[in-house]
Amino acid sequence: MEKLGRELVDGVLHLEIDVPGKKNALTDTVRADLRQAVTEAQGDSGVAAILICGAGGGFCSGGDISAMTGEPEVARRRMDILHDVVRMLIAGRKPAVAAVCGPAFGAGLSLALCCDQVLADTTARFSASFGRVGLPPDLALTWTLPRRVGEGRARRILLSSRLVEAEEALAIGLVDDLVPLSELRRAAHERAVELASFTRESKGHVKALMSQAAGSLDDILAREMDAYIALLNSEEHRRARAQFLSRRR
Amino acid sequence: MEKLGRELVDGVLHLEIDVPGKKNALTDTVRADLRQAVTEAQGDSGVAAILICGAGGGFCSGGDISAMTGEPEVARRRMDILHDVVRMLIAGRKPAVAAVCGPAFGAGLSLALCCDQVLADTTARFSASFGRVGLPPDLALTWTLPRRVGEGRARRILLSSRLVEAEEALAIGLVDDLVPLSELRRAAHERAVELASFTRESKGHVKALMSQAAGSLDDILAREMDAYIALLNSEEHRRARAQFLSRRR
Amino acid sequence: MEKLGRELVDGVLHLEIDVPGKKNALTDTVRADLRQAVTEAQGDSGVAAILICGAGGGFCSGGDISAMTGEPEVARRRMDILHDVVRMLIAGRKPAVAAVCGPAFGAGLSLALCCDQVLADTTARFSASFGRVGLPPDLALTWTLPRRVGEGRARRILLSSRLVEAEEALAIGLVDDLVPLSELRRAAHERAVELASFTRESKGHVKALMSQAAGSLDDILAREMDAYIALLNSEEHRRARAQFLSRRR
Repeated sequence: MEKLGRELVDGVLHLEIDVPGKKNALTDTVRADLRQAVTEAQGDSGVAAILICGAGGGFCSGGDISAMTGEPEVARRRMDILHDVVRMLIAGRKPAVAAVCGPAFGAGLSLALCCDQVLADTTARFSASFGRVGLPPDLALTWTLPRRVGEGRARRILLSSRLVEAEEALAIGLVDDLVPLSELRRAAHERAVELASFTRESKGHVKALMSQAAGSLDDILAREMDAYIALLNSEEHRRARAQFLSRRR
Repeated sequence: MEKLGRELVDGVLHLEIDVPGKKNALTDTVRADLRQAVTEAQGDSGVAAILICGAGGGFCSGGDISAMTGEPEVARRRMDILHDVVRMLIAGRKPAVAAVCGPAFGAGLSLALCCDQVLADTTARFSASFGRVGLPPDLALTWTLPRRVGEGRARRILLSSRLVEAEEALAIGLVDDLVPLSELRRAAHERAVELASFTRESKGHVKALMSQAAGSLDDILAREMDAYIALLNSEEHRRARAQFLSRRR
Repeated sequence: MEKLGRELVDGVLHLEIDVPGKKNALTDTVRADLRQAVTEAQGDSGVAAILICGAGGGFCSGGDISAMTGEPEVARRRMDILHDVVRMLIAGRKPAVAAVCGPAFGAGLSLALCCDQVLADTTARFSASFGRVGLPPDLALTWTLPRRVGEGRARRILLSSRLVEAEEALAIGLVDDLVPLSELRRAAHERAVELASFTRESKGHVKALMSQAAGSLDDILAREMDAYIALLNSEEHRRARAQFLSRRR
């Protein structure tokens, strides 16, 4: 049965896409569960970070072509669910890490790149396969991919739908680290813990600022100032600051 | 005689800048011909992709300084012609590849980087030579260059007008591949075919989305949705989807 | 005594942050002096470029946590001074180079990345340490860092506050060059001279265009045109153009 596995491990919420027979395609059930799980995590102080992985040796084969419909309102509604997930992963309050083995195709590639960090093993392979079926890239891939690999490489990957193997993915910065398959889940967990370290509230500000930093310099300076004033008066900062100053004496 | 050579080879429109004695500078004739050729290609279903190269061992030496005028309206009109070319190459409907040998200086460098892919041979050399004559970078170079090589390297190249040789250009991502001169044209042609593969309509959406992806995340998600709904109902997608599903059975 | 050293060396204004006992933190005095020095340099034809370094084996340890206040108006005023510096370094009229040895932490890292080029020696180490004290990144770091190192690496550095040593900094493009400590100041000076070469007025246009190039392609083409028309009629361009054409004859 298709499902989204959920497990809270030492403050990291592990979400496992598990759709046997469809190579972990993003079925309606998985979409709804992903949105619910990621939404709940935003306000849950017990969740320090999110980890997304796939079951059965693959990450995610994409948007479930068999369930696609040309009916605009239905298509829009199905996509809107994932757009909510995208916004929270890229610009939300919790650090997120993708652990990729096997195929990450189409929306599967897009979903991985919505995470702050992408860890993979040597079985991982990536394809912006949208063009093969005449569709445009989705889940902000035209936003995330060039920021990781540069404009030239991104355009080739997006226009050609070519397969990118794990080693090339590492070399061009599409993924952040390659580890043996047996250590993938643990390494991704540790990276999630690393991203969540020290203080909590500042993480959401980092992610929001990074997502807005595509705008003008003046925009970013204004938003930065707001974040600064907000956090200066947070309990967390006051405590960390007192500690820092006491250590220096 | 200065001219823009045009040849349609297996669906790829080869455009060859040929201005002897001026190292393929962008003369008024070449500007007008480039705009006409690239404009016609947009709506021509026989053209799957565009390839731009230079004749006589060089790519393009820039904006033809001898023809520049301080008269604002004339200068603006000459530049507007190239801006039309820039918009179509970066954000238009057909994948574009530059094949660079010898000098790509000033607007020649800018023109190459407007293409989705830049192939070069070891004789290629690049310079943002604008500063040498007290002019600002043109043809969207301040937009394309940092997206390819990163902000630090881009600022050095743009501020110093220093020469970048082929090997360095490859190492920093200014070009996508280096090939022997004898194979340059063929390799660029094959890359153009690769970029044009599978389906046609999605290509323009990829290029448009990439050009808009500099904006906010919310912007890009909205535009992505529009492209998705549009292509979901395209004949091309319906056919590709039916094929995909029949293969899976 | 804390101070900002100033020395004009062959047209390059060397600014040395010197705050003993606080590892060159950005105290109120240093902030005010930095703004004054960089502001005056903008309109000073004797200053071709700016070089920023730190005294006593370190670059800058950040925003002087001991002087931070939760009082919003005071905090805003202290930060506004640095925002003025940021705008001039990133988008102002003079090329700027940072010479980094030892720690560049928090706002020290941010300040270095506001410069067009960052040179370092092997003692340099970097940390976006904001998260350790529950504050958001400042001085446009969420704007500059991903443009240098890519989105994935930037998010890890910003979320984790991890230490980045000199060699890694070079490998990922956080710094532009590593040189021995004994040659750091001289190498940074030479890079500043290189960035300032050929003509003067075009430099400010390059920096302004680069800062706006985060926007849409149409925006950048419009701004580029304005810069082009402005410089076409500059005395500097007319002279450089005449020289160029006479050399060709």
